[in-house]
Amino acid sequence: MNQLPLNGLIVLEFSQYLSGPSAGLRLADLGARVIKIERPQGGDPCRKLAVKNLWVEGDALNFHAINRNKESFTADLKNKEDLELVKKLIRRADVVTHNFRPGVMEKIGLAYKDVKGINEKIIYAEISGFGRKGPWAQKPGQDLLVQSLSGLTYTTGNGGSAPVPFGLSAVDAISGIHLVQAVLGALIRRQREEKGAYIELSLIESAIGMQFELFTTFFHSKKGIQRSKINNGNPLLGAPYGVYKTADHFLSLAMMELQQLATALDWEELNVFDQRDVFQKRDEIKALIAKKLKTNTTRYWLERLRRSGLWAAAVYSWKDLDQTEGYKILEMEQELQAGDKRIFTTRCPITLNGKRLVSSKAAPTLGANREAIIKQLMEE
Amino acid sequence: MNQLPLNGLIVLEFSQYLSGPSAGLRLADLGARVIKIERPQGGDPCRKLAVKNLWVEGDALNFHAINRNKESFTADLKNKEDLELVKKLIRRADVVTHNFRPGVMEKIGLAYKDVKGINEKIIYAEISGFGRKGPWAQKPGQDLLVQSLSGLTYTTGNGGSAPVPFGLSAVDAISGIHLVQAVLGALIRRQREEKGAYIELSLIESAIGMQFELFTTFFHSKKGIQRSKINNGNPLLGAPYGVYKTADHFLSLAMMELQQLATALDWEELNVFDQRDVFQKRDEIKALIAKKLKTNTTRYWLERLRRSGLWAAAVYSWKDLDQTEGYKILEMEQELQAGDKRIFTTRCPITLNGKRLVSSKAAPTLGANREAIIKQLMEE
Repeated sequence: MNQLPLNGLIVLEFSQYLSGPSAGLRLADLGARVIKIERPQGGDPCRKLAVKNLWVEGDALNFHAINRNKESFTADLKNKEDLELVKKLIRRADVVTHNFRPGVMEKIGLAYKDVKGINEKIIYAEISGFGRKGPWAQKPGQDLLVQSLSGLTYTTGNGGSAPVPFGLSAVDAISGIHLVQAVLGALIRRQREEKGAYIELSLIESAIGMQFELFTTFFHSKKGIQRSKINNGNPLLGAPYGVYKTADHFLSLAMMELQQLATALDWEELNVFDQRDVFQKRDEIKALIAKKLKTNTTRYWLERLRRSGLWAAAVYSWKDLDQTEGYKILEMEQELQAGDKRIFTTRCPITLNGKRLVSSKAAPTLGANREAIIKQLMEE
Repeated sequence: MNQLPLNGLIVLEFSQYLSGPSAGLRLADLGARVIKIERPQGGDPCRKLAVKNLWVEGDALNFHAINRNKESFTADLKNKEDLELVKKLIRRADVVTHNFRPGVMEKIGLAYKDVKGINEKIIYAEISGFGRKGPWAQKPGQDLLVQSLSGLTYTTGNGGSAPVPFGLSAVDAISGIHLVQAVLGALIRRQREEKGAYIELSLIESAIGMQFELFTTFFHSKKGIQRSKINNGNPLLGAPYGVYKTADHFLSLAMMELQQLATALDWEELNVFDQRDVFQKRDEIKALIAKKLKTNTTRYWLERLRRSGLWAAAVYSWKDLDQTEGYKILEMEQELQAGDKRIFTTRCPITLNGKRLVSSKAAPTLGANREAIIKQLMEE
């Protein structure tokens, strides 16, 4: 379709695992041709990282979720002939991405200065774990480890208990997202000024950037930041913010005035607390609310809260969500064909000019497009 | 600076709170001129949402963190003259963003079709809570509530305990990020084809998109997804992945083979488990590891793990992190001047052509730029 923003652009994805490839996923959604450069033995290690032992045609299902809609070109970068082929590809490309440790691309001879020498207007983007300088530069850049070092594990879970990591690879995801933003920005500038760009990102900078509100508060707050001891929803917010147990399940309460909550639940007892105390006395207040909410069902409470226009919601697992009308109408699922297997995954969340960005093309098997690419892009 | 990608572009930010304005923050980092359109009484409600009672010049510190580097134009959109001024501004703008509930902009007369009538090439981006269709369309689009409905609270914390929300507004952040990606993509296309664009996003779609690996696994897994009961780090991964208590603090273990862990810790007992069991028997294995790690300090364990090249890290609060050399060398902090107050916040995580994207310009006071803008952009 010629109408997608990045149609006509070629991205060479040397990246592996999640942070870089999740960026490639989005660039492909936006219309770019994303070609994974993979080593012949095994390729992107993510192909073999099967969660819950789920496989499709010999590659992990997870790999399929991250790498749908891309092509695969195998090349051994330590082999002279293969390296020459890759350099020919670079000449035709618009964007190069990688997430190897600092020094790896230099050793291969494909650092930014090398690639710029081949293609002056290339947009070159790299994600490292911790940047190139300082005592952490050679540490393994892995999501949980960066979460742990970045302060992030102290935002979630209750005060007084262990630090709690986010249960998904948020740091990988965020840095991949920053890569997309930076690449797109650089493309805009290139259209105007015919210049390439060198983009550097790291998991730790992205993890800190993601917590910009927390760090800003930390810089200015003598008392520091503590998680609420009861049903912590956000360490910076007061009562009643959080997820509460009910008689049959759970519900979440966002921001609301205590008096409104008292009225909605016909519960005068809550008014022993003043609105000015919602941060200082949050644990006491939330403990009282927690006790109250256990006495009836989620549905019972939600009816009363909604009637008063207060911000509350049920708490769904993916299975619960899957059965709701609210979810079905979003049409978040897309189907891919991988050989004779069908894969279900989610679509890009962006709707552009009334059209959803969907593609039924599955992830490529290792090296699937090598010959075609040699023919099409290198024989001039 | 003329070298920033979005120099020369004007963004009108009708958005409030976090999801839309965090996108404006990034666009301003990339060089765009971002003008907040705020109602005269109070402006963006985020100005009054002070976390931990931290204020700067009458506006919440948090507002400053999100809205640095922008301008403020006050306008009462229900007033005819003000609306005319805003339409003049739209004529000169490149991008319009809002995150009002569906119907609000229609009522004011600034829906996409209206704005397109004024400026044909406008890029118009809106974030709603749940989209325009279906039974949830009028639900309040608030971060914690969307987390709760989207399945997200079942990724974090331990199996068997309550669902746990992420302790920061990840859904607001993610949707703002998707907005930036879509706007930048649309700008690229506009440079080529001289067309505007209509971008629709919602918190729920972004929240589901963020969990694409989880949903893909959910679609294909009969057994569903459960959090590990012990030190859950990610419900899709096996032992030892997670955060563990030590004798003096905590440490995190990422992916590693059990045999390697046993050797590194000189701990033959662990080899009673087989690598093939790391998912099925993850709770048993992790319970054993948890017991072992309590017997010595974080430093003791990390020395041994690192010597063997295994992926492990300490667990830092923001205060711990702040004192490390590894953090200092990143230079993540930037200083803003707000009147006679100094504000410390974090910088954009992107480095472009070796330069960091920093700006010392603080958030504007309400309406600070109204007169100047009228003079500069409307008198033709």
